[in-house]
Amino acid sequence: MELWYTEYQTREIGITCKISKTYYTGKSKFQDIALIETGQFGKMLVLDGMVQTTVKDEFVYHEMISHVPMCTHTNPEKILVIGGGDGGAIREAIKHKSVKKAVLVEIDGKVVEIAKKHLPEISCALDSEKVEVKVTDGIKYAKENKNTFDVVMVDSTDPVGPAAGLFDKDFYKSIYECLKEDGIFVAQTESPFFHKDLIKRVFDSVDRIFPIARLYTCSVPTYPSGYWSFTMGSKKYDPLLTDISKIDGLQTKYYNPKLHKACFVLPEFVKNIIKK
Amino acid sequence: MELWYTEYQTREIGITCKISKTYYTGKSKFQDIALIETGQFGKMLVLDGMVQTTVKDEFVYHEMISHVPMCTHTNPEKILVIGGGDGGAIREAIKHKSVKKAVLVEIDGKVVEIAKKHLPEISCALDSEKVEVKVTDGIKYAKENKNTFDVVMVDSTDPVGPAAGLFDKDFYKSIYECLKEDGIFVAQTESPFFHKDLIKRVFDSVDRIFPIARLYTCSVPTYPSGYWSFTMGSKKYDPLLTDISKIDGLQTKYYNPKLHKACFVLPEFVKNIIKK
Repeated sequence: MELWYTEYQTREIGITCKISKTYYTGKSKFQDIALIETGQFGKMLVLDGMVQTTVKDEFVYHEMISHVPMCTHTNPEKILVIGGGDGGAIREAIKHKSVKKAVLVEIDGKVVEIAKKHLPEISCALDSEKVEVKVTDGIKYAKENKNTFDVVMVDSTDPVGPAAGLFDKDFYKSIYECLKEDGIFVAQTESPFFHKDLIKRVFDSVDRIFPIARLYTCSVPTYPSGYWSFTMGSKKYDPLLTDISKIDGLQTKYYNPKLHKACFVLPEFVKNIIKK
Repeated sequence: MELWYTEYQTREIGITCKISKTYYTGKSKFQDIALIETGQFGKMLVLDGMVQTTVKDEFVYHEMISHVPMCTHTNPEKILVIGGGDGGAIREAIKHKSVKKAVLVEIDGKVVEIAKKHLPEISCALDSEKVEVKVTDGIKYAKENKNTFDVVMVDSTDPVGPAAGLFDKDFYKSIYECLKEDGIFVAQTESPFFHKDLIKRVFDSVDRIFPIARLYTCSVPTYPSGYWSFTMGSKKYDPLLTDISKIDGLQTKYYNPKLHKACFVLPEFVKNIIKK
């Protein structure tokens, strides 16, 4: 018998994956959680029926949410990841030698627990001495820690359920305040094919709050449309002006110095989404 | 009742689309053909169970297979498209004012017929005075027309069935010979996530035959993994040296002058596929 898992990414389209094993299915206080073994992408974490990460393509998303801001900042020492309970963004962030402390604030402790047990390839950095894991509300945490971080990454689920508040303008204001005076913020902002309104709204908010706002994209096969966006807000450093000759020695599978700038070159229809 | 069409892109993964109407299903001498209405992407052409093009995302593929070589060449007058019976690549090619003649060589006349009837948005250029449609074997045609074309685009189906020969080294030699002395050739070469061996093989062949070989990529939601590659072989012009300030006035939704170079900046894992 063949078992297939289907995520209906919209009401009209889905991705369907052959699965060979179910490691975990259950419910936390916040969401449904499943950890399954797929033929195409290996182990896959699913929250509320939406693919969050897979062992075989997670490198794209985690490298791009992390190295783009980390390499834009000249000396990122204190890092905050909101969401991202699988640990992938933190794993990439602490590859940077400048990092002294990285805090992961995940609202759902069960996600961290499942990732630690079943996804060691992704969660391996969560036991690092530099990493502190806090199971609490990221919105509250950002409000309570002002002028503290060099880089903040918002590695959220889709803008429904527990993550809805992470796409609000007030939240971005809190992020601005929890960054140091030259801090940088990045959030995952969904697909330019399927979520144009969301991207426009988030980009407009970030653009109003931060001196520098930029959108960049990458290809993630297991996310809706396979094409994904990130919105960056920066107080001082412009990623388009990064001296990429100084980016050196990062072990990566997707990100590289030339891509640091090329990922900001947007197709015409994406430029139009954020055009004023 | 809901009807869904599923393409199993590999043995382990598929894309599934809600459909509201079936305009055509049938068999030509070469393949199964279906033309369906999907909720997410509008009308969709399916050949042998594989999505070829949809009204809502076709612009990405057709613009990128066409404008990248067309803008790399300084004066493309005679154009050949092999495959591409839907007419999308030709439609983009004749946007360039330098074009005097564009020949479409499609082995399956039924595809042209269906596209003309059901996909006028894509096939509209096939009735242009500059366009000649030949229903014949592209391999044979390339062999018989030496030193003729400025740009050749191979807009094929996947490397099984009628298109298998379009991924052979001997075919690329014929293409080289049917190009003029400063001609450029581009072929669609599948997904960097799913078809690494094919990309490596094609790129190696093209790199041996042409002085300049380049790989570039774009995001096509309805193709396997959503991430797609094109291999370019050029006798004289290097796309990385194109004077993009001269690219002007093209009406596009994906391609633009900055992307002309950015699309050649490859993620690390893609660079590794074609590394010697």
